[in-house]
Amino acid sequence: MSKVLSKRIENLRKIMYARSVAVIGASNKKGTVGNEIILRLKEFGFKGKIYPVNLKYESVEDITAFASVIDIKKDVDVAVIAIPNINVLSAIEECHKANINGVIIISSGFKEIGAEGLKLEQDIIKTIKKYEMTLIGPNCLGVINSSPNVNFNACFAPENPVAGKIGLATQSGALASGIINILPQIRVGLGQMISLGNQADINVLDVIELWEHDDNINQILIYIESIPDSKRFKEICARVNKVKPILVIKSGRSSIGTKAAASHTGSLAGDDTLADALLSSAGVIREKYLREMFITAQVFNNCNLPKNEKLAIITNAGGPGVMATDTASEYNIELAELSDATKQTLKQFLPPQAGINNPLDVIASATHEQYTKAVDTVLSDSNVGMLMVIYLYITEQNDTGIIEDLEELKNKYLDKPIVAVFMTTTDFPIRLKKIIKNCTIPIFSYAVDAMHGISRLLERKHSLCVERNETPEIKVDEKAVKNILEQYKKSGIKQISTYSSLKIFEYYNIPVAKFEPAYTFKDAEKIAEKIGYPVVLKISSKTISHKTEVGGVVTNIRNKNELQNEWNALFNRLEKLNEIENLECVIVMKQINSKREFVAGIVNKQGENVAMFGVGGIFLEVLKEVAFSACPLSAYNAENLIKKTKAFNMLKEVRGFKPADLTKMRNILLSLSQMVEENSEINEIDINPIMVSSEGEIFTVDARIVLK
Amino acid sequence: MSKVLSKRIENLRKIMYARSVAVIGASNKKGTVGNEIILRLKEFGFKGKIYPVNLKYESVEDITAFASVIDIKKDVDVAVIAIPNINVLSAIEECHKANINGVIIISSGFKEIGAEGLKLEQDIIKTIKKYEMTLIGPNCLGVINSSPNVNFNACFAPENPVAGKIGLATQSGALASGIINILPQIRVGLGQMISLGNQADINVLDVIELWEHDDNINQILIYIESIPDSKRFKEICARVNKVKPILVIKSGRSSIGTKAAASHTGSLAGDDTLADALLSSAGVIREKYLREMFITAQVFNNCNLPKNEKLAIITNAGGPGVMATDTASEYNIELAELSDATKQTLKQFLPPQAGINNPLDVIASATHEQYTKAVDTVLSDSNVGMLMVIYLYITEQNDTGIIEDLEELKNKYLDKPIVAVFMTTTDFPIRLKKIIKNCTIPIFSYAVDAMHGISRLLERKHSLCVERNETPEIKVDEKAVKNILEQYKKSGIKQISTYSSLKIFEYYNIPVAKFEPAYTFKDAEKIAEKIGYPVVLKISSKTISHKTEVGGVVTNIRNKNELQNEWNALFNRLEKLNEIENLECVIVMKQINSKREFVAGIVNKQGENVAMFGVGGIFLEVLKEVAFSACPLSAYNAENLIKKTKAFNMLKEVRGFKPADLTKMRNILLSLSQMVEENSEINEIDINPIMVSSEGEIFTVDARIVLK
Repeated sequence: MSKVLSKRIENLRKIMYARSVAVIGASNKKGTVGNEIILRLKEFGFKGKIYPVNLKYESVEDITAFASVIDIKKDVDVAVIAIPNINVLSAIEECHKANINGVIIISSGFKEIGAEGLKLEQDIIKTIKKYEMTLIGPNCLGVINSSPNVNFNACFAPENPVAGKIGLATQSGALASGIINILPQIRVGLGQMISLGNQADINVLDVIELWEHDDNINQILIYIESIPDSKRFKEICARVNKVKPILVIKSGRSSIGTKAAASHTGSLAGDDTLADALLSSAGVIREKYLREMFITAQVFNNCNLPKNEKLAIITNAGGPGVMATDTASEYNIELAELSDATKQTLKQFLPPQAGINNPLDVIASATHEQYTKAVDTVLSDSNVGMLMVIYLYITEQNDTGIIEDLEELKNKYLDKPIVAVFMTTTDFPIRLKKIIKNCTIPIFSYAVDAMHGISRLLERKHSLCVERNETPEIKVDEKAVKNILEQYKKSGIKQISTYSSLKIFEYYNIPVAKFEPAYTFKDAEKIAEKIGYPVVLKISSKTISHKTEVGGVVTNIRNKNELQNEWNALFNRLEKLNEIENLECVIVMKQINSKREFVAGIVNKQGENVAMFGVGGIFLEVLKEVAFSACPLSAYNAENLIKKTKAFNMLKEVRGFKPADLTKMRNILLSLSQMVEENSEINEIDINPIMVSSEGEIFTVDARIVLK
Repeated sequence: MSKVLSKRIENLRKIMYARSVAVIGASNKKGTVGNEIILRLKEFGFKGKIYPVNLKYESVEDITAFASVIDIKKDVDVAVIAIPNINVLSAIEECHKANINGVIIISSGFKEIGAEGLKLEQDIIKTIKKYEMTLIGPNCLGVINSSPNVNFNACFAPENPVAGKIGLATQSGALASGIINILPQIRVGLGQMISLGNQADINVLDVIELWEHDDNINQILIYIESIPDSKRFKEICARVNKVKPILVIKSGRSSIGTKAAASHTGSLAGDDTLADALLSSAGVIREKYLREMFITAQVFNNCNLPKNEKLAIITNAGGPGVMATDTASEYNIELAELSDATKQTLKQFLPPQAGINNPLDVIASATHEQYTKAVDTVLSDSNVGMLMVIYLYITEQNDTGIIEDLEELKNKYLDKPIVAVFMTTTDFPIRLKKIIKNCTIPIFSYAVDAMHGISRLLERKHSLCVERNETPEIKVDEKAVKNILEQYKKSGIKQISTYSSLKIFEYYNIPVAKFEPAYTFKDAEKIAEKIGYPVVLKISSKTISHKTEVGGVVTNIRNKNELQNEWNALFNRLEKLNEIENLECVIVMKQINSKREFVAGIVNKQGENVAMFGVGGIFLEVLKEVAFSACPLSAYNAENLIKKTKAFNMLKEVRGFKPADLTKMRNILLSLSQMVEENSEINEIDINPIMVSSEGEIFTVDARIVLK
């Protein structure tokens, strides 16, 4: 990967690693933003020069102040602007004159307040572009870089962060302040924080690219409410996530819940769908809740990915061990079977009442030494890949001592992540800090939290293990497809007929139930004989899109007699509707009887193709077992999409019904993805249902392709 | 409700409100259980007399010691026994001689270690019964009663609890110790703790009954791994839960968890289904995780039930407000629509950039006064029934001041629960404690936690609102049912034929698709004409239980011709199987076509009747949308059971299919429940599927009743 940063990223880096900062609107008035920022810069020990700028003061917090940035007459890397919105533009002009190219606008009163503010913001953007300056904000909390050679805290959050390697980018400035307070409680340090504000210039993707190559950042936490640039978002996230974990909270999830109830594919995908699909296909971890994001961050910060995925639980209290076991099962985390040798060893030194099993209950009376020896013994078992240590403080024990031992054992078993669940005295964190300055064992109060972290470790491991781009190309009869699409483009009709849609599916190697077009009853009869009864009659019309509503689909025709009757009845219905002349053909299709119905398709969300898969038929809206992933799909993405819902279970062996071939189902999704990538005129594709027969064979029986 | 306690409960009360305690095995050796207990008794300021008992010491921790309880020669309410298991029995004999009737056996080494320990435990039980003594334990942590006139801490948890009104009963002693540490962190005080141990005499139900009438307890928290007495459990929990909330963690929710529990307590934990069904039908709240139990306890401890169930969210930071809204939607908690008057008032005093909506974003620059006034204004809106206050500490604000104001406003709006989500500085709890000694606002770091608490408030309100016993009695043709059952009992056949099962259903007013028995083809023809084609043929045999496996069910017969063919084919198949003589009749049933299939039934779990309901057909195992509730079902239980899974959504209007009548579906469950209550010879009933037609009509089409 090239370490040559784009000019844009280079400029952003200059801001974050500033050697000098001007604070426009610096103030001696306590409680003001202009005062808080100067205080933070000083308290945090900024390694560069601080230049307060304010007409009113000779000095601000004992630092010589300037009336204007122009008066500074020294190199200034960045100007932090904290003055009323209407004065910001002229301040930027002065920065330009003073040769300052990086600005952070703290001030609010821009896009977020409506038309008036938007105008101000647009003027600022123009000016920034004209002078080739770089801007963070406006309407933000500021930035922090805790690298010891920088110590740059240019924000007005009340607390200074503890240094570390987390990169935090947030669209909610106030949230950054909250997170700075919480990180020390989870023993995770902050490397850099960028409050994105209105993202008038620098946006979240620039920040991710900045951190991609910054060795001071090992993990990226993001809070966003919208995704700025879908294509770039997926590309950058997918790339950077391979190098350092990206954890994202994208709020506004609830729209997916409400909109998922809508009946058709197009409306099924709510506002959040695209974001979710992009995050999912980029392989980044999407957290729902802040608490869970912090848990994951704590575990990622301290644990290597496990080689073996089986978990051992060691506890000195039975009840919490049982609860942890329940939780493991809920997270689909498998418990390791301890080897006989391990059990023998454990029996030799543990109290006789100990439960030599997994969970291993060393019981409350186990001494510190016994506990630690049990941990070592269990970790040395090759059946064990990960360890959860549960410890309750009872009588004369030594909780901090156990953590000390775990720190040591951690280095002995580097590829075996250890998480601790400690229910001990209130002053434990304080006592622990006295003994271990930098504790690297993730410690939680509850097993469910630790289990969340472990499950994310496994999730990350799986997404990294798979080569995401190793995706088979589906062989296509391109000419035939182009022919059909050209015809439709010429005719101006947007909805491709059922027959042509099914043909395109065939050209894309999607399995369709046997079908042929009939134009006369004689045709239909011959086809039915050929493919075998029972058959389905299905109209393919240029005008009718909802076939069933006009009685255009007749199922379960079991013999020639019935075929004749139904054929006649069908044409009578069409005649009454005056639809005979719009009829392309009548499809005679092999009847597929199955209760296993799935939905697959492509929806267009804000110009992006999003693949969907889930439980189909009438259960679609009721069960809401549908998931989304952005196109183009890799083989990994497609498989992951299938596995995301209970539809996956329906593909397995069910009540004597044979399992479906997962690769074949995956390939349908890959075909759909390839189809929309190769034919940009396609807007939407909907297959509902895809049937899986009792023999496990997969058939699409209907298709709807809509052009842009 | 009678305040007259049973002798058993009266004796338990005597132990918990002891005025004198002997500690057998009291010790001066630091770190021993016998020393810890004496220390706790002293530290906690026991109001009664302490009598250490140990041959070896003249005094223990400066309290005069006795060689034996017999030597005390004073009234002793309870003896705490902490000596090796083999000496416990003789200690009990001595207690009896010394006229001590209450004992707490801390010592382990009984049932939980296997056969040898079980023998010791059985001997103890015999002795206790013989002398009419009352026993807590063995193998327990001890007990606590923090009532100020008692101050009885007779356990060896290292920390003393903060006093309050929580009653905690736990089967895991070590867990009690962990919980004592955690309660102060959530600002909830402990009233009494009883470590149940092996429950050789006093069990969890006795404890619940004790607390039912104890005004010092306002909420009951329970950790159990098995349920001691199903019938009594349901009855006591349902009764006491109406008066004070009972929160239960029953571990062993998963099959591996059940195994872990079995090896922990030595008792067979049994299927979790029964436990779940009992808890559910008793209306108690079952928590999955400790964290969530503590959240609920904190909210229940401080909030009244809301009258109006709509939530308002007030925040000074946009991002957290959006996240809270997502979470509300996830918990199905409806946001209130602020009235126009409220909005007008808010606009008058909030900053112009404030988002006057719900969530109400007062923005970071809102002053303390503005924030509080906003809370008051929103609470005064009659559209608002509950309030979540989100507060991030930014610059010069006053977090503890906001809590002070909330404490006041809480008293002004007594029926509007307030929960706070505060992301503030690390020292906030310490600062808060200095200002408010007894904070009664539940405060969380994350909105999701607060939302869990709110959702439990609503759950409790709903379960209390409904008169649980107001359940219609289904009218039954009892004689007809008894006739059938008598015949089967005489014959010794366990499985009732399909025809007779369907008839019993009819006698119990369960809607069955039209059916009649045919003995000849002529019969079948007449019946089919009468009920109308298409019809189904279904054998009713004395020997064949799996009808479809022998081709005993033929569906979709559309005319006389087909009926004749299928009738003949059916009899040919039966002839080949030599099953003609076992045939009772052939059922001719109206064909019901529907994709909405449900399952209902009664399963027998450890002798208890448990009702089930969920998504049926082949989706049963795949979707696992099935829930359980213990019989007898009340109308509330039955409705609740239907609402527990996504089956509930399938009963609503789906894709133009009409909704089913919920009361009718509920009545099917009530019929089944009544059927097993009235006919104890029935072991299991299974209806799969119950069909709901596109018109919303409900039909059972098959039935299986098995006798004990």
